[in-house]
Amino acid sequence: MNPPPRPDDRAILPSPSAASVQEQAAEFGRPTEGWREQMYIVIFEADTRAGRLFDIALIGAILLSVLVVVLDSVQALNRRYGAWFDALEWTFTLLFTAEYIARLACVRHPWRYARSFFGMIDLLAVLPTYLAILVPELHALIDVRILRLLRIFRIFKLTLYAAEYRMLARALASSRRKIIVFLGFVAMVVLVMGTLMFVVEGPEHGFHNIPIGVYWAITTMTTVGFGDITPKTDLGRAIASLMMLLGWGVLAVPTGIVTAEMTSLRHRPVTTRTCPECLTEDHPPDANFCRHCGARLPLYRTDAAPPDQAENRRNTA
Amino acid sequence: MNPPPRPDDRAILPSPSAASVQEQAAEFGRPTEGWREQMYIVIFEADTRAGRLFDIALIGAILLSVLVVVLDSVQALNRRYGAWFDALEWTFTLLFTAEYIARLACVRHPWRYARSFFGMIDLLAVLPTYLAILVPELHALIDVRILRLLRIFRIFKLTLYAAEYRMLARALASSRRKIIVFLGFVAMVVLVMGTLMFVVEGPEHGFHNIPIGVYWAITTMTTVGFGDITPKTDLGRAIASLMMLLGWGVLAVPTGIVTAEMTSLRHRPVTTRTCPECLTEDHPPDANFCRHCGARLPLYRTDAAPPDQAENRRNTA
Amino acid sequence: MNPPPRPDDRAILPSPSAASVQEQAAEFGRPTEGWREQMYIVIFEADTRAGRLFDIALIGAILLSVLVVVLDSVQALNRRYGAWFDALEWTFTLLFTAEYIARLACVRHPWRYARSFFGMIDLLAVLPTYLAILVPELHALIDVRILRLLRIFRIFKLTLYAAEYRMLARALASSRRKIIVFLGFVAMVVLVMGTLMFVVEGPEHGFHNIPIGVYWAITTMTTVGFGDITPKTDLGRAIASLMMLLGWGVLAVPTGIVTAEMTSLRHRPVTTRTCPECLTEDHPPDANFCRHCGARLPLYRTDAAPPDQAENRRNTA
Amino acid sequence: MNPPPRPDDRAILPSPSAASVQEQAAEFGRPTEGWREQMYIVIFEADTRAGRLFDIALIGAILLSVLVVVLDSVQALNRRYGAWFDALEWTFTLLFTAEYIARLACVRHPWRYARSFFGMIDLLAVLPTYLAILVPELHALIDVRILRLLRIFRIFKLTLYAAEYRMLARALASSRRKIIVFLGFVAMVVLVMGTLMFVVEGPEHGFHNIPIGVYWAITTMTTVGFGDITPKTDLGRAIASLMMLLGWGVLAVPTGIVTAEMTSLRHRPVTTRTCPECLTEDHPPDANFCRHCGARLPLYRTDAAPPDQAENRRNTA
Repeated sequence: MNPPPRPDDRAILPSPSAASVQEQAAEFGRPTEGWREQMYIVIFEADTRAGRLFDIALIGAILLSVLVVVLDSVQALNRRYGAWFDALEWTFTLLFTAEYIARLACVRHPWRYARSFFGMIDLLAVLPTYLAILVPELHALIDVRILRLLRIFRIFKLTLYAAEYRMLARALASSRRKIIVFLGFVAMVVLVMGTLMFVVEGPEHGFHNIPIGVYWAITTMTTVGFGDITPKTDLGRAIASLMMLLGWGVLAVPTGIVTAEMTSLRHRPVTTRTCPECLTEDHPPDANFCRHCGARLPLYRTDAAPPDQAENRRNTA
Repeated sequence: MNPPPRPDDRAILPSPSAASVQEQAAEFGRPTEGWREQMYIVIFEADTRAGRLFDIALIGAILLSVLVVVLDSVQALNRRYGAWFDALEWTFTLLFTAEYIARLACVRHPWRYARSFFGMIDLLAVLPTYLAILVPELHALIDVRILRLLRIFRIFKLTLYAAEYRMLARALASSRRKIIVFLGFVAMVVLVMGTLMFVVEGPEHGFHNIPIGVYWAITTMTTVGFGDITPKTDLGRAIASLMMLLGWGVLAVPTGIVTAEMTSLRHRPVTTRTCPECLTEDHPPDANFCRHCGARLPLYRTDAAPPDQAENRRNTA
Repeated sequence: MNPPPRPDDRAILPSPSAASVQEQAAEFGRPTEGWREQMYIVIFEADTRAGRLFDIALIGAILLSVLVVVLDSVQALNRRYGAWFDALEWTFTLLFTAEYIARLACVRHPWRYARSFFGMIDLLAVLPTYLAILVPELHALIDVRILRLLRIFRIFKLTLYAAEYRMLARALASSRRKIIVFLGFVAMVVLVMGTLMFVVEGPEHGFHNIPIGVYWAITTMTTVGFGDITPKTDLGRAIASLMMLLGWGVLAVPTGIVTAEMTSLRHRPVTTRTCPECLTEDHPPDANFCRHCGARLPLYRTDAAPPDQAENRRNTA
Repeated sequence: MNPPPRPDDRAILPSPSAASVQEQAAEFGRPTEGWREQMYIVIFEADTRAGRLFDIALIGAILLSVLVVVLDSVQALNRRYGAWFDALEWTFTLLFTAEYIARLACVRHPWRYARSFFGMIDLLAVLPTYLAILVPELHALIDVRILRLLRIFRIFKLTLYAAEYRMLARALASSRRKIIVFLGFVAMVVLVMGTLMFVVEGPEHGFHNIPIGVYWAITTMTTVGFGDITPKTDLGRAIASLMMLLGWGVLAVPTGIVTAEMTSLRHRPVTTRTCPECLTEDHPPDANFCRHCGARLPLYRTDAAPPDQAENRRNTA
């Protein structure tokens, strides 16, 4: 009856959860005096005014820098504002580099931080821009698009700021086996069905090989249904119909079962249990006394003689 | 065991809920005598015959006026009945203007009503038609289509008539944080996946920039799958498959977990075990004593002789 | 704790439920002697061998006749086997006519049967074929396709044979208001969004009028996503993204909430309640006695002093 | 309160479940001495080191052989590595043949194994390759693609290694009737709707016959929405809208009902009311006496003085 405490359902302002703050202190080594401790308090902790301002500024910078990457990919905007985007990108890169260096400088085990998930994200966030400068030949070989992709990963730093993501990660980890078994089942079905459609429809109808058949099977079973490849033969359409009903049924059948169970539980016929004194109905099976008049209730489900009248009257309100 | 009272599950006739009637009286100021009170009773309250007739007439007028806007957009109908539609539109505009003025006239704080949600809707419902007349140059600048859009908003006045919409609004408000965290997760996934597909497929396959990639990622993750943009490369299709399984799995995996939990709860092997004294059911297989009255329970699944009566009575509460 | 009795989960052989048999007897009037009673027992009841054979034969005839209608619509098959299909169709029509007449003949209130749901289906099942013969000019006016449609309705007679369909109909009827309110919400959303897309995209991109916009909005919100009409402008795609997230979210958000609630209930920390005698944990909040050793448990959630040792020992097994 | 034991939620390494090992021993006959027993222990059981190595090797071989079949279907890869694929395919065929013969050799009832599900899979796994050699004319008649399909079925051998698949099979079997009734309902709807669309749209819009109409109805109701066939008439689109709302609503309406029930159960306004004597919580707002000990409850939601101690004691159980 006491579910685990959950984050305040109304707090929108993001801040690292207490648990993650403690974990980081233990893992990376919180300094205990001097300018390093001051810097640590601002960067890694969130209970001082400076600390919270830092967090909000960092979130703002991450969102803005991601927006710049997104807008820069639009040809029209790139042509008009390309120079501005470059300038902003360099500003952000320098800011994030300073933040990265500051983080490494103020923890006691900088190496552990560099190897952690968020440490890698920090490095990945600034590396592309430097690579483009330091290794100009790279520019010709690697598509600029890939560099944009690496910068997008900055957005994962935001997961630090909501405890729910840690809870979600833990929940997924604990259901690991169930999910793998489920995915294995889906993999087997789409593999067999994909091969079946490849056999039935063949390359002349778009199913050039088994991988394409599997791709089609996934679009069908997950009810996405792009329509770039569709069955043309009667048998193919019949098989497709089975797959569609399977993919949709995996959602619909359990939902129906749960709803049926739930509504039958709610309308359970406890109404048969009646107080002999005041005739109130609807007593739970585990009740001993009438909630309305206090009389002792007959034992559940027996045809025993009603309890002694005197005993009842002594208890009546 | 007594859930909060809910609207009668069979009542179809719409009427403002008691709670909203009280709220309005408090907020806008219910007059207490004279013609203003008479008008208020008809317009804002629903327990007199005139009040209910007003409500039904208003709902009818809203539905009809929205229908006129919809039909007017169909070229063929516009050519044949355009004049009729204009006449009806002016009739409705005048009716709604009269209603708006009446509302403002009979409350004690008209300024508060004008600033409220329904007050704004009322204004928006009549403004377009007047603008089209009073500012004819507007007609050339603003697409008539936009004026149609504003008139469609009249339909939101109907939400006053079903208490469930207020309950829904309150439920959404209280789960505000959960929904934002969930949307944040979805936003991060579609942003990274959209950029990934932009990098992998590129403009030559339809993925012209990151925003288009994100649009595609949303159509795929929500299993809508328009098919206007589809991956053409093998790697692109592999990534698309992962996204489809993710979007569908977010629905399928929890549904499966809930169904498994529910059916295992329902079929847990304890329902057969009953205390001979107090008839409490539902004792775990490893229990020796009744949790309710303390009597000794018969051994699980054996046909052992019932325990000694005297021993049971000593333990009875 | 006692859900209503449900049909045997393993019985596949269809038969009318006991409830429907009684209802029919009361409504239409069961004859009490002679050949009429004999015929009634075979046709309307299912507890004699003849009655069950009749049911199975009827179901077979319905399924076969529907199959004939379906196959007859395929041009290739119609050309090759058209004559056979006609012959079979006439056989079925005569059979169903005989059945209809027999039903009317053996009940005591034939007029009530003719007006009932199944009576109308019976009539609709045979009428088209007679119309095609008796009113030949009709053949030229009414598309043969419509006559096929009417014959397909025979399949609704099968709903008599599974009690679940009656339960489903009753469940839908009792949730009538909830469903209407929900549909009303969906109607408002697709109307406003459809108009919005009509305004934003316009006829040049396929959105010729508001009804088409609403059709598109429904394909998007229900995540079907045909792709026959798709947004082309940036703003249109942004609005489409919101609609897709809304339609998918209506499924995903509640599923997530239910899963979170369910798993937190399952892992509730009742483990804090420990028996002072034998140290067994995990007692339900409503338990008075330890299920393992019978000792009286301390009251839930107080810091009261442990109960008197002697009192515990008196109760120990 | 003790759900049936379930496979360890963290174990990833696959192994046949204890139940299936016992079933196989009983069904096929476990030998009791000599080399046959040694071979049986390695092949059919998993508690020795050799047994587990055999399992892991077999799973690896199955996955690899399926991968070869998949890659071999890609024209580009087939041209470059066709010879390698053939060689690998023959190696796997010989391995699986040896495994099959070993299984038959070491059980006591080889005939029962050959007739079982996994026995048939084993045969089907090796047969195609031999057929292609022994009956060369077959090569010209039967599409090589079909032979690939048969080899893909090897993947079903993996279901032996996860107990969840047996649980899933049992759960499906016990809900057999519910699923058939549900599918029957879906079949009736898509048949009637498919015929309706065939009548309304007709061959000129792609709906050539009723089977195609039914195929379209399934793609729409399961929200897949390929878009290869779409309604073009207004009436057709209206009917399509109803189908889409039905298919999506079958998922959305029950989900909404379950969420509403669940949250109302959790937040029902009774948790605050506690009996002063026995501290039982969860009394309905209208209760006057504690259902557990009979004590008089304080009035709901007032700050009335606690009831007289003496009166309470007289009522205590």
